[in-house]
Amino acid sequence: MSLAEQALSYVRAISPYQPGKPITELAREMGIPVDSIVKLASNENPLGMSPKARVAVEKAISGVERYPDQFDLIAKVAKRCAVGQNQVVLGNGSNDVLDLIARVFLAPGRSAVFAQHAFAVYPLATLSTGAELIVTPAKNYGHDLDAMRAAIRPDTRIVWIANPNNPTGNFLPYAEVRAFLESVPKDVVVVLDEAYNEYIPAAERVDTAGWLKDLPNLLICRTLSKIYGLAGLRIGYGLASPEVADLMNRVRQPFNVNNLALAGALAALDDHEFLNASYELNRRGMEQLVAALKRLNLEYIPSCGNFVTFRAGDAATVNQKLLKQGVIVRPIGGYGLPEWLRVTIGTEVENVRFIEALEKAL
Amino acid sequence: MSLAEQALSYVRAISPYQPGKPITELAREMGIPVDSIVKLASNENPLGMSPKARVAVEKAISGVERYPDQFDLIAKVAKRCAVGQNQVVLGNGSNDVLDLIARVFLAPGRSAVFAQHAFAVYPLATLSTGAELIVTPAKNYGHDLDAMRAAIRPDTRIVWIANPNNPTGNFLPYAEVRAFLESVPKDVVVVLDEAYNEYIPAAERVDTAGWLKDLPNLLICRTLSKIYGLAGLRIGYGLASPEVADLMNRVRQPFNVNNLALAGALAALDDHEFLNASYELNRRGMEQLVAALKRLNLEYIPSCGNFVTFRAGDAATVNQKLLKQGVIVRPIGGYGLPEWLRVTIGTEVENVRFIEALEKAL
Repeated sequence: MSLAEQALSYVRAISPYQPGKPITELAREMGIPVDSIVKLASNENPLGMSPKARVAVEKAISGVERYPDQFDLIAKVAKRCAVGQNQVVLGNGSNDVLDLIARVFLAPGRSAVFAQHAFAVYPLATLSTGAELIVTPAKNYGHDLDAMRAAIRPDTRIVWIANPNNPTGNFLPYAEVRAFLESVPKDVVVVLDEAYNEYIPAAERVDTAGWLKDLPNLLICRTLSKIYGLAGLRIGYGLASPEVADLMNRVRQPFNVNNLALAGALAALDDHEFLNASYELNRRGMEQLVAALKRLNLEYIPSCGNFVTFRAGDAATVNQKLLKQGVIVRPIGGYGLPEWLRVTIGTEVENVRFIEALEKAL
Repeated sequence: MSLAEQALSYVRAISPYQPGKPITELAREMGIPVDSIVKLASNENPLGMSPKARVAVEKAISGVERYPDQFDLIAKVAKRCAVGQNQVVLGNGSNDVLDLIARVFLAPGRSAVFAQHAFAVYPLATLSTGAELIVTPAKNYGHDLDAMRAAIRPDTRIVWIANPNNPTGNFLPYAEVRAFLESVPKDVVVVLDEAYNEYIPAAERVDTAGWLKDLPNLLICRTLSKIYGLAGLRIGYGLASPEVADLMNRVRQPFNVNNLALAGALAALDDHEFLNASYELNRRGMEQLVAALKRLNLEYIPSCGNFVTFRAGDAATVNQKLLKQGVIVRPIGGYGLPEWLRVTIGTEVENVRFIEALEKAL
């Protein structure tokens, strides 16, 4: 047998993740100056990073020759979320947290349940372990929790839920999520990915960390890549029962989170001013984009995230025309939505650039 | 069955990695001021980071709200090593690279060969996949390549080799490594971990990247955590055949390396002045420490790394006495060397602190 044929068959079958096109890549490909490109493709914070986090990161540069120590950030997250320090698992972005839980519970002969149009890392994390992926049809482009519950088999070990969902922006009211969690077998882990949690209206938010007390099969997953503006630093965290957190730490690379991410996150979590400004900018930007989509008679999915997904028709062509004008959005054919594009909410000026480019592209 | 019992049995059996004690942890535990602690426990560069890398990292902070783009660093590493860009796999530290290759080729029913006293991440990466670990006895505390070749079974898919080895510092002349590689079945991956490569004398060094042309089952693994002084940033890389690199990229988290590590590594790779200064400091410090160990009649293992391992006898007690004096070294009982301690080469002043503390501790 050749060397490549000795690789695990399920690894050979994986199609790698398709990230949003980086600004530098578009600049290279089309010769467009970097400064004139608007990237609204990866749900990044258009305000950049928290100024407090910036100061903390700058200070932490003196010390990058040392291996990182997660103690302080774990303590802070635990206190903030009112859980034990042994319930916090830090990740190299929340992608890492998703990967860790898959490696603890999934393998060939096991399965995970996932909703159509949900975040692409769930199938990747599942398939890289050799487990089977059970896909349930979407309901209004979001999770159909009844269908997901019905799809759970005796060999199912993980159910993946994103709330709000990416790339569709659907939000499941927390009462429904809670009822779902109570109805799932206790030996199945439910991953509740709250990457976009901070963008939902305050009145809708629920302290899900409190649920861990009576739901030990819950893993809550959060990130500092979105509203906290630290995507490039790579930091997210999981909250779980002590037993599940301990298991995840057994497959976690010991130095999986870098020093500067640890320092930046410590400061960012306390920068409420920046969080509020980011939330407000997003709320106004969402109104601006939704008004434009309505004016252009484009169908869109009401979103509780920092992005909105709309039906562009021949999305590949529209996307190419946007790229030529230096505007990067996200084609989501890989999510089973080939006619749709996802656009991140930018600054007011970036949103105008996008809307004008879209009008020309249609 | 309880939830934890549903975790994969081989994950439940893993004992997590024991890192070198962080300075902050000793400060917390013993109330010793951070500034008076000398840490010689994790083979970090006592000169800190490259000044050029520092400038690059500071500049890259404006931009951490964006997801990272690996293009430039992959291009640079490929050019530097004279391999194709499709032969470079970047890792969140070289630990990540080791983990990726294990996830491509190992699973229950497969095995990996590993030498007694070799780096602890090899067994962790192996056991986390459910594969069997075949341990061959050491020869003079280093790899016995003949024993490793003889231990390869039909189900063996990876052989782990560190050169120089950590924590013992042994160096295998490259002619022996090359002969070993030629004798191994072509469908078994040999991981050649060169984390400490830059510390071996120039006359002994060989361009192993050139071997990839006729040895497609070779994976060379390097890090910027050691002589480059970027341990806290988390960046390493693997060089492999295009087929193996492609497989590793299928299980790689798409944003596994952070923006600041990418920027820092790009600059650090070109800072030859810093590299030379680090190499010279290490050479002089090794002479200083070896002279002291000889004077104290302590057995030590001749080392080609930035550390030296010596027989302390009751190592646990000696270690405790060192800690009380604010000196952190590395106990290596977990490596099957319970009577030994590993000390990183520090600055001249740090080495003196260690030697004086050791004399008191004995």
